[in-house]
Amino acid sequence: MIPVLDHSLTKPLYLQIYTYIKDAILIGSIKPGEKLPSLRGLSKDLGLSLTTVGLSYNQLLVEGYISSRPQSGYFANVISAGVTASPFEGSDQILSQLDDVTPRRFYSDLSSFDFVKWKKCMNKILNDYPHLLLEEGSPQGEETLRSQISRYIYQSRGVRCHANQIVIGAGTQQITNLLAIMLSMMGIEDACFEDPGYRPARSIFIGRGFGILPIPVGKEGILIEELPSGIKSTVYVSPSNQFPMGSVMPIARRYALLEWAKINNSMIIEDDYDSELRYFGRPIPSLSGLDNGEHVVYLGSFSSTLFPSIKISYMVLPEVLFALFKTMVNDYTQTCSKAEQLTLALYMQNGLYQTNIKKLRKLYTQKARVATDSINKRMLGVAKILNNSSGVHMLLEVTSKQSPEELCLAAATLGIEIIPIAKYTFQKIVKDNAVLIFYYTRIPLHEIDGAIKNLSALWHK
Amino acid sequence: MIPVLDHSLTKPLYLQIYTYIKDAILIGSIKPGEKLPSLRGLSKDLGLSLTTVGLSYNQLLVEGYISSRPQSGYFANVISAGVTASPFEGSDQILSQLDDVTPRRFYSDLSSFDFVKWKKCMNKILNDYPHLLLEEGSPQGEETLRSQISRYIYQSRGVRCHANQIVIGAGTQQITNLLAIMLSMMGIEDACFEDPGYRPARSIFIGRGFGILPIPVGKEGILIEELPSGIKSTVYVSPSNQFPMGSVMPIARRYALLEWAKINNSMIIEDDYDSELRYFGRPIPSLSGLDNGEHVVYLGSFSSTLFPSIKISYMVLPEVLFALFKTMVNDYTQTCSKAEQLTLALYMQNGLYQTNIKKLRKLYTQKARVATDSINKRMLGVAKILNNSSGVHMLLEVTSKQSPEELCLAAATLGIEIIPIAKYTFQKIVKDNAVLIFYYTRIPLHEIDGAIKNLSALWHK
Repeated sequence: MIPVLDHSLTKPLYLQIYTYIKDAILIGSIKPGEKLPSLRGLSKDLGLSLTTVGLSYNQLLVEGYISSRPQSGYFANVISAGVTASPFEGSDQILSQLDDVTPRRFYSDLSSFDFVKWKKCMNKILNDYPHLLLEEGSPQGEETLRSQISRYIYQSRGVRCHANQIVIGAGTQQITNLLAIMLSMMGIEDACFEDPGYRPARSIFIGRGFGILPIPVGKEGILIEELPSGIKSTVYVSPSNQFPMGSVMPIARRYALLEWAKINNSMIIEDDYDSELRYFGRPIPSLSGLDNGEHVVYLGSFSSTLFPSIKISYMVLPEVLFALFKTMVNDYTQTCSKAEQLTLALYMQNGLYQTNIKKLRKLYTQKARVATDSINKRMLGVAKILNNSSGVHMLLEVTSKQSPEELCLAAATLGIEIIPIAKYTFQKIVKDNAVLIFYYTRIPLHEIDGAIKNLSALWHK
Repeated sequence: MIPVLDHSLTKPLYLQIYTYIKDAILIGSIKPGEKLPSLRGLSKDLGLSLTTVGLSYNQLLVEGYISSRPQSGYFANVISAGVTASPFEGSDQILSQLDDVTPRRFYSDLSSFDFVKWKKCMNKILNDYPHLLLEEGSPQGEETLRSQISRYIYQSRGVRCHANQIVIGAGTQQITNLLAIMLSMMGIEDACFEDPGYRPARSIFIGRGFGILPIPVGKEGILIEELPSGIKSTVYVSPSNQFPMGSVMPIARRYALLEWAKINNSMIIEDDYDSELRYFGRPIPSLSGLDNGEHVVYLGSFSSTLFPSIKISYMVLPEVLFALFKTMVNDYTQTCSKAEQLTLALYMQNGLYQTNIKKLRKLYTQKARVATDSINKRMLGVAKILNNSSGVHMLLEVTSKQSPEELCLAAATLGIEIIPIAKYTFQKIVKDNAVLIFYYTRIPLHEIDGAIKNLSALWHK
């Protein structure tokens, strides 16, 4: 504790120290019972005489803010509860509060990620490469990670690119923001979005002043016929796993979409999130892999395949955008943790990433089966599964007197994450039944049936 | 390796597999000597007959892309060097390349941060709190870290705020971007910047369409008299340690700046970077601490006090901006690593952060003394120290026939980071002598004199 003093004020220094400590005690920054600095220590730290500091402590003693204990020093007193409660409430005993601070409101499945292996990679970086952490990270993202990503997406998704074409950022929103700036620079003013679709991406383009065109989604993905023609625009799609509907764009439609982009000199943003976790059906080539490298920006992320709080996303830029990126890269700082980027590079190089995806595919396949059986058995006449092949969630159509919000709130009380699809639509869907997104993969395998049983009881009311 | 096949193409499947593997070998995605999947394994993975897969392997054998070894399987051949070099060059042996990928071009001082203690905190989070990492982070930043920051900045800088007023982001640029959006929403259209000043912040405001007013800097910081009056605007200042001039705004000028903001209903952005590392002179109260909580946004960062590649910054919002932030927070995702935020909270709670700052202050004081003595002795008539109290760098005025860029390039060949001040100015400075920013604190203590000796030899040419 070093009180900040102002020598130019007419207020005497001892009173400034007094006020500082008094305030600190009142707002809880100094806790009841906490030991104050010794007179000698504080006077040395402040470069002031013992007398000055003594005067302020004396004033605090007199007014009852502190007490003196023989042979041990000065301690803050307990002040009335109403005052100590603000404004620093909750700042003590941080560690013991870690659990409460981010309450475990929802189920989470510790078996979905092996933190021990991750920790080993992180420790290797902290032990053996600390000098790398003493240099700022690359604005584009660490090259060692970009190399790993370029190999991986070629092998798993057929995306051909050089590590130099990859840009890393902290989350899809961050990446999309950069992209929106570059598309603006290219003279694109309109952006098309799947409706329903991924909201945060849309918000970025709204914030950057783009005209927004919601395009309906069918069983084969976005309705290409509804895309604007005769103007240069961009379309944000999730063809391999449409969010949140889970539809997959067949190969012929993919070629049609690429053709649209070519004819209109437009840019496709392919969000390939979660596609690695699709466990029913054959993988379908990415748009980027089918393209000649001119009209598709490929977006990927590690949130679903590692753990949700890791914020590492990337995009693969076609030549024309990469040229633009080079002009702006020096004014841009990297948002992604360098330590985590290097850890992930090592994790991928050791084959752990691929192993984890295999494990997740198997686990999620089991979860899908259990959840499907449980819903069909326990929710007959209440909930119907519309689509359960999306990777991490399923779509439910629920017949109930309760509103979609009430149904989701009931689920939340059980720790089950369910979101009304209406949250992701532009145009209001007029429908008698609620369509809900059910994140059943967040629930541990052996608790799924029990959770659905409890939910069924609440929804039957 | 799973070839992505397209069943709708007229091209036979065996040829698609053949092309996929051939390409992978040519671009280096499959390395020379690497074992290919077995016929049986691949046909199972693809759901195709052994015959189809066998046909493609046979074609590859015939054309010399692969060889078969009895009892062991199929292996990729070495193809001519010219072809294998592109486009995946440099993606193998990542780990052994970690050092090369981010070359140690500049000196770095491993004694400036104790990665072992950091690692212990990180391991504690990964061991004991993995379930927290399975939930996405708070868009505003983890509350446990915000609480620690609120206590710390009160004690060290006199900034009074509730943890709720703090917003965390990955780097000052990220934070400034959010701030620029909010200031736009408040109807502010003009932003004033110190000239010379911190360039990345300026770029953000330019990108958001603000009018930019460069304001000269004197010995007492920004020239307040040159700020616009009669209009609502914002000014970005670093009053406790002006970047890069190192000037400190005296208390009377601070009150004058606050008065300007009040009269013009304008907003001050106080970048308090590095102020903890000033080791000459008494700390001066922050603007935010002197304000009534209405006109100052306080910005802080951990890059200088932990290690440069960590990207954790924060801002303290006055009420009016916090209200705006609440309206946009749901459309915003956190960019800062949650694992690192929790690690830092623990690190601060254990008092390790404060200990490290004390250690750095002592170390940097020694470095400043050594560097000053060395320059005065070895660079007489060549370099003059203009300011050495800034924390992590000093300003040098160099008399030389070489241009500032040439002088800095010469330094870089020795691993010494020196930047021409002109990089941070708006208006061209017309001056015979070069003014340079010398990051001497990056050099280990006992190598400083030697480094300056070597530099002197290059500069005397």
